[in-house]
Parts: sequence; C-alpha cells; structure tokens
Amino acid sequence: MTQTTAYPPNLALPPAARPGDPLTAVDTPALVLDLDAFERNLDRLQAAAGAAGVALRPHAKAHKCPAIALAQLRRGAVGICCQKVSEALPFLAAGIADIHVSNEVVGAAKADLLARMARQGRFSVCVDHPAQVAALAEATARHGSALAVFVEVDIGQGRCGVPDAPAVLRLLDALAAHPQLRFGGLQAYQGGVQHVRRQADRRDAAQRAAARAGEVVAALAQAGVACPTVTGGGTGSVEFDLASGVYTELQPGSYVFMDGDYGRNDASSAWRFEHSLFLACTVMSVGDGTRVIVDAGLKSLAVDSGLPTVWHAGAESPQLVYAAANDEHGIVRCRDAAAPRPELGAQLLLVPGHCDPTLNLHDDIVALRGGIVEAIWPVAARGLSR
Amino acid sequence: MTQTTAYPPNLALPPAARPGDPLTAVDTPALVLDLDAFERNLDRLQAAAGAAGVALRPHAKAHKCPAIALAQLRRGAVGICCQKVSEALPFLAAGIADIHVSNEVVGAAKADLLARMARQGRFSVCVDHPAQVAALAEATARHGSALAVFVEVDIGQGRCGVPDAPAVLRLLDALAAHPQLRFGGLQAYQGGVQHVRRQADRRDAAQRAAARAGEVVAALAQAGVACPTVTGGGTGSVEFDLASGVYTELQPGSYVFMDGDYGRNDASSAWRFEHSLFLACTVMSVGDGTRVIVDAGLKSLAVDSGLPTVWHAGAESPQLVYAAANDEHGIVRCRDAAAPRPELGAQLLLVPGHCDPTLNLHDDIVALRGGIVEAIWPVAARGLSR
Repeated sequence: MTQTTAYPPNLALPPAARPGDPLTAVDTPALVLDLDAFERNLDRLQAAAGAAGVALRPHAKAHKCPAIALAQLRRGAVGICCQKVSEALPFLAAGIADIHVSNEVVGAAKADLLARMARQGRFSVCVDHPAQVAALAEATARHGSALAVFVEVDIGQGRCGVPDAPAVLRLLDALAAHPQLRFGGLQAYQGGVQHVRRQADRRDAAQRAAARAGEVVAALAQAGVACPTVTGGGTGSVEFDLASGVYTELQPGSYVFMDGDYGRNDASSAWRFEHSLFLACTVMSVGDGTRVIVDAGLKSLAVDSGLPTVWHAGAESPQLVYAAANDEHGIVRCRDAAAPRPELGAQLLLVPGHCDPTLNLHDDIVALRGGIVEAIWPVAARGLSR
Repeated sequence: MTQTTAYPPNLALPPAARPGDPLTAVDTPALVLDLDAFERNLDRLQAAAGAAGVALRPHAKAHKCPAIALAQLRRGAVGICCQKVSEALPFLAAGIADIHVSNEVVGAAKADLLARMARQGRFSVCVDHPAQVAALAEATARHGSALAVFVEVDIGQGRCGVPDAPAVLRLLDALAAHPQLRFGGLQAYQGGVQHVRRQADRRDAAQRAAARAGEVVAALAQAGVACPTVTGGGTGSVEFDLASGVYTELQPGSYVFMDGDYGRNDASSAWRFEHSLFLACTVMSVGDGTRVIVDAGLKSLAVDSGLPTVWHAGAESPQLVYAAANDEHGIVRCRDAAAPRPELGAQLLLVPGHCDPTLNLHDDIVALRGGIVEAIWPVAARGLSR
C-alpha cells in the first residue's frame, strides 16, 4: 500500500532512511530490522519444521509485511496465516495465494470479501458456529468460489472454538450441504501456553493442550472422519508442538522478531530466537541527571506485554531502563547517576515487549545488514483489522 | 492522506461505511463518533475559554484529524498544537496555518521539515537545551523562515523542560543571536495532574503546577523579560487552568472524545464532557454462556489506561465487562449467565480507556448523527510520529 499525500512537493514527508544510510542516520522513531538475525530465525525454524515433517504456515499477523512473508515462503513455508480477512489483501496482491484466515468471520462485508479473494487464491477459514457456515456458503455461492473450512477447537484458552468432537460433527453436518465448502481439518491454538515462563511448565501446558486436540482427532476418526490438517501453535510452544504428533502444520509468528516478552521465557538455547527487531529512538531531552527522554512512546510502541528493554552501542544496556511510556515520550532512567549518560541526539534501540501490535503502529520497516540500510519494507497490512 | 492500493479493482477494501448507512451497518472494528455529543463538547469548552478570556489552542495529537481541527477553529480556537513535526503536515495541507509543536525537536531531519513548514504558516516549537536552539537557527536560516520559540518549564512532571527562570534566561541568550527565532513565551504542562481522581486533589495539584509556572513568569518579569504567551494544560485540569491567572492559552485535546480514563475522574457536571467516540465491534463467537468474543483487541484499541467499558443498546451495559484484550480479539464477560447475552453478529460499542493512542490505530472516523452516518473523516496524521 502506498500513501499519497496532498502536500505541496516541497513538503512531502521524507522517508525515515534510504538504502545505503547508516543506522545512525535513520529518522526516529522507526522500526529497524537486523536482517542477519532475522534470516537466522527464519532458517532455524524452517529447518526444525522440515526435520520434524511438520508444515510451517507462519502467521503474518506478527509482521503484516509481504516482503517478510515472501522470505518465509522462499524457505519452504507452505503458505501463511492471517487473522483478519482484510489483512490478507496486501499479501494476495503480493502474489501469495495460499492463505489461512485463522479466525472466525462474522459479518456480511467480511464474508463477501473473503469469498471474492477466494476466486484468486487458495483460502481457508475457521468456524465455531453454524451461522458462520451459512454465511460463508451464501457468499461463496454468490461469487462462485470455494473455501477450505477448519473447525476451531477450544483446547483450553477459553476464547473461540467448539469444546469437543460431537460439536465438530454438528458443524460438519452443516458443511455437508455446501460442496464449495471443503472440510480442511481442525484449528487448535492455546495462546495461554505461549508465555508460561519455565520451560518445563510450558512443555506440560503445551502437551496438555495438544493432547486435547489429539483426543478430538481420535474421536472424529472413530466416527469415520479424517482430519486432513491439524493447525495451530505459536512461537512459545513450537518445540513441543513439533514433537506432539498431533499438529500437521504450525502457525508461529513472533519467532521472526522475538518479542521482549518471549525473550523472558526460559528456553533451551536451540529454541532461543534472536531479537531482530528494534525501535530506533532519539534522546530529545536530557533531564536532570537521572533520566533521559526519548522520542518514542505509546504511539510507536505497544506496552501491553511490558516495557521495552534498551540497547545502546550494540548490546542490551545494564545502565538504561525504559521506565514509562507517555503518548509520544519515553522516560529512560539511568541506574547509576555517576555513569556516562547518552547525550542529546543519541540514538537508542528498544526491544518491544510485544511485536505484533507494535508493527501495527508503523508503515515501514527499515531493514539493515551490518548497520547499513538495505531496504525499506512496507508494513502493507498495518491497520487492516476488519 | 489517501491510500492507494495495488489490488485488482474487484478486490479493493470497501469503506467501513457510507453516508446514509445506519450505525448497525458499519463494518467493524471501526471508530464511530457521535457528532451531537462531540459538538456539545467543543461548544462547551470554547464558551468556557471565551468567558475566562483565555485562548484555546486544542491539541491535535488527540484526534490527528483535520476535519476535527477545522471544527475547533470554526468555534474560535486560535490555532492547534501538534506533538511531532511530521504530525503537523496534514493539518498544514488542510489549510491550518497556526500550529504550535508542543515539544522539543531533536534531529536534523525534523528541524529541516519544521523550517520548511514554517515558510507556509505561523509555527512555534519548544526548547529546553541550547543545542535545540542552534539546530532550529541553522535550519530556519537555510530555508529563510521564522519560528516562535517557547521555553518549556518543568512544573512537576519530571519529563522535559528547564527547572527555573535562570535556565530560561540562558536559553533566551542563545535565542538572541538569531533574529528569525522569536521568544514566544513559556510552555508549562503537568501530565501527572490530569488523571488525579478526586476533584479537590486534582485542583490542588493543578494549582501547585500553575503556581510553579507563575513563579517563573514573575522571576522573568523581574529580570525585565515579558512572556507573550504561557501555554499548557489538559482536559483534566482545564477548569483550574482557566481560573489560574497564569495561563494565557490552553492545550486540551481529549475533551472532544472524553476517554474512558478521564471519565473515571470525579468532576463537577459542568466539566464532565460526554463520551462521543466509540469503537464499534461485533460479536464473532458466543463462547460457553459466560462470555462473548468480539472482533476488537489490541490492534484497534489502546489499553494502557485501562480496558474499555461496553455500551449496548445506547447505554453503558451493567451486564457486559470487557475483560481481556488479545491482539485481535476481546473477551467480554457476562456478569449474569442467566441474563440475555448479545447474539452472534451483534454490534457492541466500546469506550476506549485512552483515545489518543486508539486514534493512532485507525485510518478513519465514521461520524454519525442520530445513528446515521454523516461523513467519513480521515485520521490523516495517524502514524506520523517523527
């Protein structure tokens, strides 16, 4: 998506950076991506999925960026997930034609858009109520398109999804009347597992969740119903989900960036992805000797999962603590008032606590290699929440 | 700002609503504005400012919407505030030519853009360090433009600003060398006062903050320096700031919408603005009898100042509690499992806890009168955080 403006040409907003610029020249606040770390994250998870014989369908809700989705597909991802119907539009426009909408769709406008997109690609979607099936059937019939339909099973999160195999079978009865709606399998996701801190506790929680999905698969098999695909999982549980024997396809998203909050999970080094995404900000006021003020607050950084950690001079700073986010300001406390503080104009890097909603605040990602800007990637699905 | 897309014409994202549509037809999640309540809020504060003889320069960071700024100016506002240089661009493009950047500006790109904008309007900006003065002087000299410069005084927030009159005088010395930089006066804002719950406590805190600003004004007068303007204040303190005798100009922003968090302030009815802004969302899953799931979470709603309250059927619902925000889902608990619950597809309205960062998630505001869509207003400064 390209933004055009009504400003006189001499008043267009310049890009935050241009290819060839050094990191220090990036106008802030701006999301900056360390391409080397990012590519290692992509390679590592794709290799693990390949070794386990499980398909990888990364979640594009984490990045909302077609350039990143294409990088995932080039490494062997079978397609992508989107969480909203409108979110899929820029990915389809970028030529990505295998998209699973990992969510229920309610509302005539949404069913209509999905049915129209499904004429141009291989789309699937979730249901947990017969009224959703009826609306999808109507829209696809009207547009002459087809969808794979997954029944979402609640494996412990207490959000969407049906509770058990009999409820799945009732939805399959509703599906059976509509040949353009093919049963794709089950979606089973337990978001509550992802951020359990201790690895052993997280393993137990992930195994309990996968076991609930496995019980539904087994009960359906007893009823003569095969599940072509069992899809779900996230970055925090991926090591356990790959080994579960239940999932045939995984949907992790955050591994590409590694949120600050995921970084607080205890994980074996083989499963510790690298922080690749940072919010570059600038010291705009130097306060009273115990703090500096940076130009990045709530409007460029999501804080729902904790405040960011601060990196300075290439590493996490033991001296600097991002202590409070105002709308447009960040208050950075200096632990040791006697130690040197960043000067006015200094650039700091923040590791966002939660990347998903942070990405949703930005139009671009500045991609760098070795500290030099290589590309500017549009966050083309930013704001597409319908 | 208009978004153009690369999608085939048959796959453009339809607007959330069209003029003439009823509220129930708005595709969700979408920001909806009750124009009658909104206009009463604007009229009420403008009348109070006029009666007090204090200029009103509303803060556009709250709405980021030129249509709203123009409505404020039509009622008598003397200009607007922006918090970031880039944020001012769409307002200038909409013909608003009196803009105060109520913040320090650090970085060559920002000083350059501000100096270029100042050729086309009457701009002012804050400083709290001589290096900022030097950068503004260089950029304005290069572009042949002029700025009014306000010295920000820290009146208790502990964020930006200088502590006292001697520090102001040092910055005036720095300014004196640059005839294109005119001393505009003082900016004095205490964000911490705004959300003090009890009215008497908030009054005391606002009076203490204003008194600190007044002391600096008096000390400057003693030194023979007049402050043309003393600007600051917010929605939570506006009744006390108008009566302070210190402020000549106020910068409230949130009064147009009335955040959920401001709504939790204890205020006399004369100063209780109305909730005019809501996030319309849709029940997309009906759960187990104790909850419903809506299609609006962290990506369409800021939760830094608390979760939203839920309105249903035209009033705040005693039965429905927005209990948790996931990235794209909201969990709404039903207090009484025996009472009727909203059905699948029902529309609910949420009062955001904090409007500023919520607006920054949306490209449009759907403006309604009497439940019928009257206009779609672009949030043209959405995401302009540089």
